[in-house]
Amino acid sequence: MIYSLQNLWQEVRDLTLGPPPRVDRLPSPPSPLQFLRHYVGPNKPCLISAAVPDWPALSLWPSPSYLRETLASTAVSLHLTPTGKADALAPGSPNSSPCFAAAHVEKLPFPEALDLVKASDLGEIKRVAYLQQQNDCFRAEYGPLAADCEGHVPWASEALGCLPEAVNFWVGNRFSETSFHKDHYENLYVVISGEKRFLLLPPTDVHRMYVREYPAAQYIYHRDSEEFELKLEEPVRKVPWCSVDPYPSPNNKSSEIDKFPLYFNGPKPFEVTVKAGEMLYLPSMWFHHVRQSTDDSTLTIAINYWYDMQFDIKYAYFNFLQSIPCSLFENRVMCETASSSEKCSFDDED
Amino acid sequence: MIYSLQNLWQEVRDLTLGPPPRVDRLPSPPSPLQFLRHYVGPNKPCLISAAVPDWPALSLWPSPSYLRETLASTAVSLHLTPTGKADALAPGSPNSSPCFAAAHVEKLPFPEALDLVKASDLGEIKRVAYLQQQNDCFRAEYGPLAADCEGHVPWASEALGCLPEAVNFWVGNRFSETSFHKDHYENLYVVISGEKRFLLLPPTDVHRMYVREYPAAQYIYHRDSEEFELKLEEPVRKVPWCSVDPYPSPNNKSSEIDKFPLYFNGPKPFEVTVKAGEMLYLPSMWFHHVRQSTDDSTLTIAINYWYDMQFDIKYAYFNFLQSIPCSLFENRVMCETASSSEKCSFDDED
Repeated sequence: MIYSLQNLWQEVRDLTLGPPPRVDRLPSPPSPLQFLRHYVGPNKPCLISAAVPDWPALSLWPSPSYLRETLASTAVSLHLTPTGKADALAPGSPNSSPCFAAAHVEKLPFPEALDLVKASDLGEIKRVAYLQQQNDCFRAEYGPLAADCEGHVPWASEALGCLPEAVNFWVGNRFSETSFHKDHYENLYVVISGEKRFLLLPPTDVHRMYVREYPAAQYIYHRDSEEFELKLEEPVRKVPWCSVDPYPSPNNKSSEIDKFPLYFNGPKPFEVTVKAGEMLYLPSMWFHHVRQSTDDSTLTIAINYWYDMQFDIKYAYFNFLQSIPCSLFENRVMCETASSSEKCSFDDED
Repeated sequence: MIYSLQNLWQEVRDLTLGPPPRVDRLPSPPSPLQFLRHYVGPNKPCLISAAVPDWPALSLWPSPSYLRETLASTAVSLHLTPTGKADALAPGSPNSSPCFAAAHVEKLPFPEALDLVKASDLGEIKRVAYLQQQNDCFRAEYGPLAADCEGHVPWASEALGCLPEAVNFWVGNRFSETSFHKDHYENLYVVISGEKRFLLLPPTDVHRMYVREYPAAQYIYHRDSEEFELKLEEPVRKVPWCSVDPYPSPNNKSSEIDKFPLYFNGPKPFEVTVKAGEMLYLPSMWFHHVRQSTDDSTLTIAINYWYDMQFDIKYAYFNFLQSIPCSLFENRVMCETASSSEKCSFDDED
């Protein structure tokens, strides 16, 4: 097992992350120095308990009437899918392979959009609405809420030496799910109401995500028939995306395990539930899968801050790692034989 | 060239280090936050110009009479070799392969040791003396000099959250040379007199060092005959060490290039000359080769601070990288053919 990926997955956990499923929990925000030293530099997540005790948002936003009144005449972006899964793989038409499906996006007055979020259902209606737009939507669309929270995370801005590149706002329900992916940002994720459940994998585990290229497609929602159409982009555009669904249906489970053994048989992902008032530091390049409160009636409201990441030696290592075909390791014996004369194992003398 | 090491070497330079041979130069010490954000986290060196303007050492130590008087009755560790190269590869006996040779170490009164450093010569005498001992020797052996400089680097201690694990002191001349190696420490290196010339390679370049195992040996100096004996340790102990001498003699040059093409034909190392009053931040895990002033008469006096490094995701990536035999890449075609069905190249959608 000289150059096995398994050693890498295990070592990063042994050295710095600790054993899954837990991540470091801090009772209150770290100092900028602590944040850089213990989390950003080492590329390690943490969960902060009393992260934003002074935000008016904590008491205001959970009340639907407050949001409804404050945003009465505000147009916001609503994402509609038949399954709750947007920016995710979807089965193609009966004879085609899976595609990467983006949600149908509409701009609606907030109260109308909120009604649709609440009316989401996978039973008869088969329509899930999610208020989100990962394009700085909090600053672009939710101006009337600006005074209820901070426009940045002061200790993080001081640590990182910049202000957030984007601030996003999310209102969803238990049906909304975000599939495994990574972002090129340092991410600070605050939950205001309900809870978000993250599965996290470090960038060293890239091969376990079975990233493959899928044709891009778009849901189109027809109001009159209340039905979705899934339309492939033309000309075809390929999107590299993680193939693993960590929660396959009982019917699919064994075939999914067979297809993605490195994920299902490897180390468990880190599991983090972020509750109201808490903040997750989700380091750049970490793979994450997100679900909401499982509670029927609770809306999950969250805001997150994307700070530019540094494209440093860690990023170069990552690119090198992901450029190595998985099967190189499966064909290890062959390659080891070819290379036994030039082993580069190395430790300092002392 | 999908998973070529060359891409990795180039990318880390393109992304963060910039093109060799230069490293970042700062006019004065960075703040603790800047140091962590721009240098320690990204594992990137920098040279600081006016690093220790207030140290009495800057004016006191260059005067040999000051050191001689202050340390008149102090015993210090002196390293003796016939070549100036200690902790370096040396030709074995006529019929054996190279070994890893450690210096002969003696404890002598400082004035006597200093005379031997000054009397070093590779002509008739063939004896080079170097005042050094990389085992916290400044604090252990040079107590009378403590008030002349700081016991730590305050902004680095604040950034790293600890005090130095070791502080080392060095007095050498133009014959002393330290062969390529790496340390598991964050290193802050201050020159007080003369200059130190570093060649630096990032940890991503590990395969270019041709790290191989050599039998450990020890120089023994016989005072009576004024000759050195090189004695292999018994039982044999193997030491992994870098094989590359970046300055081969003209006679050996072309054979060295043939033996170590990844070093000589790859990207140039970073070159840093640290002059009196300047400080080099030499990041953990970087390979470094060190020479002194080339000036005949100038002693090079330096002090360096070793801070504990973090064994984080970068270290796990490094271990993975170095565990891959160099020849795997030379046999790339074979392995690519075996693996073409499972390519893991991956970039985010946008």
